[in-house]
Amino acid sequence: MTGDRFVFKFTEGDASMRALLGGKGAGLAEMTRIGLPVPPGFTIVSRACIAYHESGRELPPGLEEQVGSALAELEAAMGKQLGDAANPLLVSVRSGAAVSMPGMMDTILNLGLNDQAAEGLAQVTGDRRFALDCYRRLLQMFGEVVLKVSARTFEDLLTAARDRAGARHDHELGPAELGRVVDRFKSAIQRGAGVSFPQEPRQQLILAVRAVFESWQNERARVYRRLNSIPDDLGTAVNVQAMAFGNSGPTSGSGVLFTRHPATGERRILGEYLPNAQGEDVVAGIRTPYPVARLRDELPEVYGELERVSALLERHYREVQDIEFTVEHGRLFVLQTRSANLTAEASVRRAVDFVSEGLIDRSEAVRRVSAETVERLLHRRIDPRSRVEVLSRGLPASPGAATGSVVFDADRAEKMAAKGQRVLLVRPETTPDDIHGMVASEGVLTSRGGMTCHAAIVARHMGKPCVVGCDELRIDLGAAVFAVRGRSFAEGDVISIDGASGEVIEGEVRLIDPDLSPALLTVLDWADEIRRLGVRANADTPGDAARARSFGAQGIGLCRTEHMFMAQDRLPVVQEMIMAETVEERQAALVRLLPMQQGDFRGILEAMDGLPVTIRLLDPPLHEFLPNIEELEARMRRLRERVRRLARGSDLGRSRGKAEEALEELDRTRRMVRRARALQEVNPMLGLRGCRLGIVYPEIYEMQARAIFQAAAELIAAGRNPLPEVMIPLVGHVRELEITRQMVERVAVQVRGATGCDFPVVIGTMIEIPRAALTAGEIAGQAEFFSFGTNDLTQTTFGFSRDDAEGKFLHHYSQAKVLKDNPFAVLDRDGVGRLIEIGVSAGRRAKPHLKVGICGEHGGEPRSIAFCHEVGLDYVSCSPYRVPVARLAAAHAALAAGANAHRDG
Amino acid sequence: MTGDRFVFKFTEGDASMRALLGGKGAGLAEMTRIGLPVPPGFTIVSRACIAYHESGRELPPGLEEQVGSALAELEAAMGKQLGDAANPLLVSVRSGAAVSMPGMMDTILNLGLNDQAAEGLAQVTGDRRFALDCYRRLLQMFGEVVLKVSARTFEDLLTAARDRAGARHDHELGPAELGRVVDRFKSAIQRGAGVSFPQEPRQQLILAVRAVFESWQNERARVYRRLNSIPDDLGTAVNVQAMAFGNSGPTSGSGVLFTRHPATGERRILGEYLPNAQGEDVVAGIRTPYPVARLRDELPEVYGELERVSALLERHYREVQDIEFTVEHGRLFVLQTRSANLTAEASVRRAVDFVSEGLIDRSEAVRRVSAETVERLLHRRIDPRSRVEVLSRGLPASPGAATGSVVFDADRAEKMAAKGQRVLLVRPETTPDDIHGMVASEGVLTSRGGMTCHAAIVARHMGKPCVVGCDELRIDLGAAVFAVRGRSFAEGDVISIDGASGEVIEGEVRLIDPDLSPALLTVLDWADEIRRLGVRANADTPGDAARARSFGAQGIGLCRTEHMFMAQDRLPVVQEMIMAETVEERQAALVRLLPMQQGDFRGILEAMDGLPVTIRLLDPPLHEFLPNIEELEARMRRLRERVRRLARGSDLGRSRGKAEEALEELDRTRRMVRRARALQEVNPMLGLRGCRLGIVYPEIYEMQARAIFQAAAELIAAGRNPLPEVMIPLVGHVRELEITRQMVERVAVQVRGATGCDFPVVIGTMIEIPRAALTAGEIAGQAEFFSFGTNDLTQTTFGFSRDDAEGKFLHHYSQAKVLKDNPFAVLDRDGVGRLIEIGVSAGRRAKPHLKVGICGEHGGEPRSIAFCHEVGLDYVSCSPYRVPVARLAAAHAALAAGANAHRDG
Repeated sequence: MTGDRFVFKFTEGDASMRALLGGKGAGLAEMTRIGLPVPPGFTIVSRACIAYHESGRELPPGLEEQVGSALAELEAAMGKQLGDAANPLLVSVRSGAAVSMPGMMDTILNLGLNDQAAEGLAQVTGDRRFALDCYRRLLQMFGEVVLKVSARTFEDLLTAARDRAGARHDHELGPAELGRVVDRFKSAIQRGAGVSFPQEPRQQLILAVRAVFESWQNERARVYRRLNSIPDDLGTAVNVQAMAFGNSGPTSGSGVLFTRHPATGERRILGEYLPNAQGEDVVAGIRTPYPVARLRDELPEVYGELERVSALLERHYREVQDIEFTVEHGRLFVLQTRSANLTAEASVRRAVDFVSEGLIDRSEAVRRVSAETVERLLHRRIDPRSRVEVLSRGLPASPGAATGSVVFDADRAEKMAAKGQRVLLVRPETTPDDIHGMVASEGVLTSRGGMTCHAAIVARHMGKPCVVGCDELRIDLGAAVFAVRGRSFAEGDVISIDGASGEVIEGEVRLIDPDLSPALLTVLDWADEIRRLGVRANADTPGDAARARSFGAQGIGLCRTEHMFMAQDRLPVVQEMIMAETVEERQAALVRLLPMQQGDFRGILEAMDGLPVTIRLLDPPLHEFLPNIEELEARMRRLRERVRRLARGSDLGRSRGKAEEALEELDRTRRMVRRARALQEVNPMLGLRGCRLGIVYPEIYEMQARAIFQAAAELIAAGRNPLPEVMIPLVGHVRELEITRQMVERVAVQVRGATGCDFPVVIGTMIEIPRAALTAGEIAGQAEFFSFGTNDLTQTTFGFSRDDAEGKFLHHYSQAKVLKDNPFAVLDRDGVGRLIEIGVSAGRRAKPHLKVGICGEHGGEPRSIAFCHEVGLDYVSCSPYRVPVARLAAAHAALAAGANAHRDG
Repeated sequence: MTGDRFVFKFTEGDASMRALLGGKGAGLAEMTRIGLPVPPGFTIVSRACIAYHESGRELPPGLEEQVGSALAELEAAMGKQLGDAANPLLVSVRSGAAVSMPGMMDTILNLGLNDQAAEGLAQVTGDRRFALDCYRRLLQMFGEVVLKVSARTFEDLLTAARDRAGARHDHELGPAELGRVVDRFKSAIQRGAGVSFPQEPRQQLILAVRAVFESWQNERARVYRRLNSIPDDLGTAVNVQAMAFGNSGPTSGSGVLFTRHPATGERRILGEYLPNAQGEDVVAGIRTPYPVARLRDELPEVYGELERVSALLERHYREVQDIEFTVEHGRLFVLQTRSANLTAEASVRRAVDFVSEGLIDRSEAVRRVSAETVERLLHRRIDPRSRVEVLSRGLPASPGAATGSVVFDADRAEKMAAKGQRVLLVRPETTPDDIHGMVASEGVLTSRGGMTCHAAIVARHMGKPCVVGCDELRIDLGAAVFAVRGRSFAEGDVISIDGASGEVIEGEVRLIDPDLSPALLTVLDWADEIRRLGVRANADTPGDAARARSFGAQGIGLCRTEHMFMAQDRLPVVQEMIMAETVEERQAALVRLLPMQQGDFRGILEAMDGLPVTIRLLDPPLHEFLPNIEELEARMRRLRERVRRLARGSDLGRSRGKAEEALEELDRTRRMVRRARALQEVNPMLGLRGCRLGIVYPEIYEMQARAIFQAAAELIAAGRNPLPEVMIPLVGHVRELEITRQMVERVAVQVRGATGCDFPVVIGTMIEIPRAALTAGEIAGQAEFFSFGTNDLTQTTFGFSRDDAEGKFLHHYSQAKVLKDNPFAVLDRDGVGRLIEIGVSAGRRAKPHLKVGICGEHGGEPRSIAFCHEVGLDYVSCSPYRVPVARLAAAHAALAAGANAHRDG
């Protein structure tokens, strides 16, 4: 073994020598190599540690000599000597294996101090307290780590010293007290270890190196390795590095800086500097540091060096850096550098600037901007600098923040908003009757419901902040108050919600507006160049459609017709349609709905002129359009009471008229109760909805198809280019699609005949039932396109009702680590994803040019978008506000797939 | 083409010559070949028809000559001549292609008659009316088919004749009238066709053959071929056959017979004979026929011939035959033979007898007994000979028939039954509170619910007849009456139900007891020799288990622990457990449940000693154990009223005590309402149930595991051999199984430690969620066995809630032919079956010896069992009463697979 080389100076290595030098050693070597003024030092290679353990804990022959000469070089480089009474060199001794094992092994700082050198350090720094504190720390660390004196011994002595001095913290101990602590520590070592603290620094070093080697085999390191599958025979390297002192006089100091502005991304050094101070003084905040920029005047050479170092680091690491540095007698040492935490704005700006500076290319810039960053920039946010008092927390149903006066009723909300008041609608849950109140409100807060409850879906589509299922809220609608954690809020009281975190906050908060900066637009353009996946939006109104288009949507992937049914002016007609007792009655109501739907479709097709618009025929169970039964019964009771009251005064003519009106209303309500009961289902999610409705009540789908085609014909006549696609929901068997498709085709032929207009007829289906995915080959025969409805597909594949799961057991599942992610947020690759793969491949085998997309909420979630890319979908569709996120995530997916392909090649 | 052979006598062909002779011709040849006295004749091959059309409707050269000589032979064989004035030969001319096209082409009977021959026929039969009627029919058929006179012409003339005679039916016309009809028909032909009816019989024949050839190309035949993908160039053969007359005198006659008793299977000829009569006279029932047995004395030679023919036919067709025969002057002609319709009993008996007679082997005997047959034999049935008045029809939820006095309340049912009265429980729906009433009743009838409602499941498991979802019933529980189609039934009125058909019947009906005859037991034993699939039963009580074992079950595939929870003595404790507000309270209730469950398991394990018993841990949502909220609220109202009433009299000591009791009860009910509301779910089918319960409330599963293992330990100590298998329900993710498995294993270790007993610990899972099937490879790592729960798997794969689908749209789907079968009855191969295949293959790949079964209701359905066999499952499990059905169906599956393998090989 003699003759082996065990020691490498930092100047001799680089980042590639990780296996030999360990992670930390290779990093220090790399920083040194690129020309950073890193405090010099050397690394004892991990092989030495292995040899140490293999030989029965003997240092390998030659190691001591090699360390000796490396140390001599280090002393020469620093112009200081270990243990020197005048200007002593101090070193740190740190472990560092090839695989990071943070905190698992031992470190010793301030090595080289002894009684003499402590005195020298006091003089050279002019800070006796500091010198004694360094010495005290060395004694403590060395005592514990090398000499195995119990940690408790030192802690007890320190506590006693603080008690005597009446001090609460160690830094309040003065030099005299610290001097006494040093003495007591030395005695404790003598007593505890049976040897005195070695005053000879070279002996300290060798013992410290041995101790680090030993720590490779300590209990916690071994357990850590087992848990993380790290081989036991890797060994650890040992890094010995000079320590620098910023408190060595007026030309010394410590500072931190960002290589660019971490909040705006602006291209200038930003930081703080404290003269004649150590790093920890900057952090402690006892003295006020000044801006780094002042160094330009105070220590122009140091400042120039900082500029040079900043540029060097950015160029090398291609990232904004957060640097800690020390100046010792006018000499700059970089102690640490790491990638800076940037705000969303800064992150985008630096990506774009880096491209123009030639540091990275466009792909890398796109890669650098995370989807979350874009998401943050697209909603009003609570100013991160403001302080807020969180009252409670619900489910983050729709992102964005809102502040407003509490209101408990949709009509009141509308009235107050009309007066210019900002309101926040608070309800146990919302129903179609509340939509106008939601429109009028800044945001919505409910005490019940999961991520797909009515409030959540509608709010997401309005792009309105929403928190649901906040079950700590006790809402008393009668009294128009809610209570939470012992406090009470009445109508008009101001609260805020953060729909991204689910927080409910007392009072008003400062909000920041969303920012579609030019830098962001640039990044999104670059993303568009890279991505293969198309991005569409889920939108139900012309307004939503226009917004989606402005965000870059390439079409509408899901236009839900039921939201049109829920509009206040249609709901009574829809209810009439539902309560019809004959096909004729139903058709009469549908005839009245037809022009309204036609208008809806015309508006959306016009907004998306030239882009495809996938319109889903009616999907939800009909009872969703009726008030709930409890409400109806309460209404019945009120009406009965009113009729009785009016009957008493019925000899007066006016009252008689009113009584008749009330009777009529009572009858209507009674019929509604009866119908609602008949429509009640045990599991509405798995009941009479989707194409099942279309098969049981063909006239509904026929009306919708007619509205779509007539709208298209109108637009074509006006010289526009509408591209509607008709989508049949909830198909599980090819016959369901075949039958409904024929209905739609028949209507198309009729409308073509009547208008003489040759609009396109494209018919496809949602794949949202496991059986549809499993029999996709057959279904593709009847479909021009598939759109994976992953909300429902997740519910059926897991057998989870989202409404119930999120309230009743999913939180439990996340605590018990049953599921890593909420499958309604992040697409489950193994189950739902498997079905998608089966569906796509069977569908394409049957029809090679089948267009395949996704329109569940996963279509806006980055990890799910990556899956969609991998599995070969043509497009994703998401809510308008997520379109930019999806554009970026789609580019990320393409880049990752490219990288993988490259790796595979 | 000359020299081609176009004509084959019946004596020259056999069954294999179908392509040449057509189906009918080959059949007649085969019957002739095996020695049956078939009226002789010959077949003109289909090739002649093709040649006819190819040559522009020319009879191919040589055909007329060949027909002529075949006819001469026929005349010689029959000893009669076509057109003979004394004893004329009559023939039928029938089409018959290689593929059956029933009714598509033309037929002419009685050919050969003319003015002379009609006279001869009148004399030889002594029945002038008959002779003229034959002639009239020939004129009509020949006129329409050959001479293209409109059918209307003949009908109008007949109608006029009837009107004149004041007759309603043709057979009321006397010889004089018929003579006039004949004359008028001849004139009509002359008028309509421009030619007179050909008196020359040979000319008739050639024209008839041409007409049959023509009919191959008529409109309806062409459409039929297009619809059924039958090639146009197949052509039809023409069969010319002598007609026999049973009305030719006292040694003539007609009869029908079965070769064995069609109701019992007894081995003796059974039939009826009418002397001097044609076949249609036997059917018309004007004269009373006598038993065929009397022929033994009357015409012993004919009888002997009938015995010979019967044996011959059974030996040839290997099936009981239903024969039509005619005797003409003591000469027997077999006109037709077909397989007899047998009752279930007869079907089984003949299969066993056929084996002992050497007609078929055991496999064939097993094949011959259908699963439906066995099913019919295993339940009490309505005597098919009795007349019933059907009041309404519901869903056939549990087979078997029952008669009893209507009762609307479980307690009343119990009381009336205790007095020896047979009762039938009628309810809107049943709940766990009704179980004791169901036990006491002969059967159950509900107005609501689908095939898996509470009543249906419980009744099937009790093997009790049940009809559910009979929505015509208007039940008024308060008044204890129900109304249906305008009639009303009160408590005590007798009705009957047929759980196999869903019929609700007025009054008492005669029932037949199930019959496990020795013949059936023999067939089942043979089935056991053949089948590969194991057959287990779904059973929840020791009684069910014992019954299942007596029916041949090889274990319990599904023991549902929730039914034990629903027993009347446990329900209050279970409800306490559910209403517990802390883990401690819950555990206190569980401690009380433990010994009860342990007793349950001991009983079942004991009944199945030495056979595996798969026990499923708690599955249904907890709210199923609470009364429904509406009931609870009604109870609250009653209690409040009672408290108020008692409070008024509270100065009396006795009343005060009662008031306190009522107050306590009110409080308990209020808590129950609160808990029931908290447990309410939007889609309970997809909510907090199955292993999700086990993860949220681990103490419940731990109690159940303890009860199972302690029961096993007790039995082992008593020298028995219990083989429990613990089954975790509703697993969708491997972690769910891992976590619950660990709970069960921990309990097993504890019980082993405490008892020192080494019981087997086998843990597996239901596969009833699509995700479980899709990730079966992972899940198999944690499971010793899989059991496909196809009820739930069908619900989730289709996205159908069974409760809703069966009431709301499945009937619509069957009308609209969306689905061929109800997927809850017959396993859906394409969707659910695909998941099962994926699950089995992934599971076995991960764990080759994984045991895989099915425990959904499909486990007892023959077509589904065939699928289970094909896909390689180890066993099916079904309700005890279906075990014999499953044993047989499993054998059928093995035989079919063997046949397929043979074909493939």
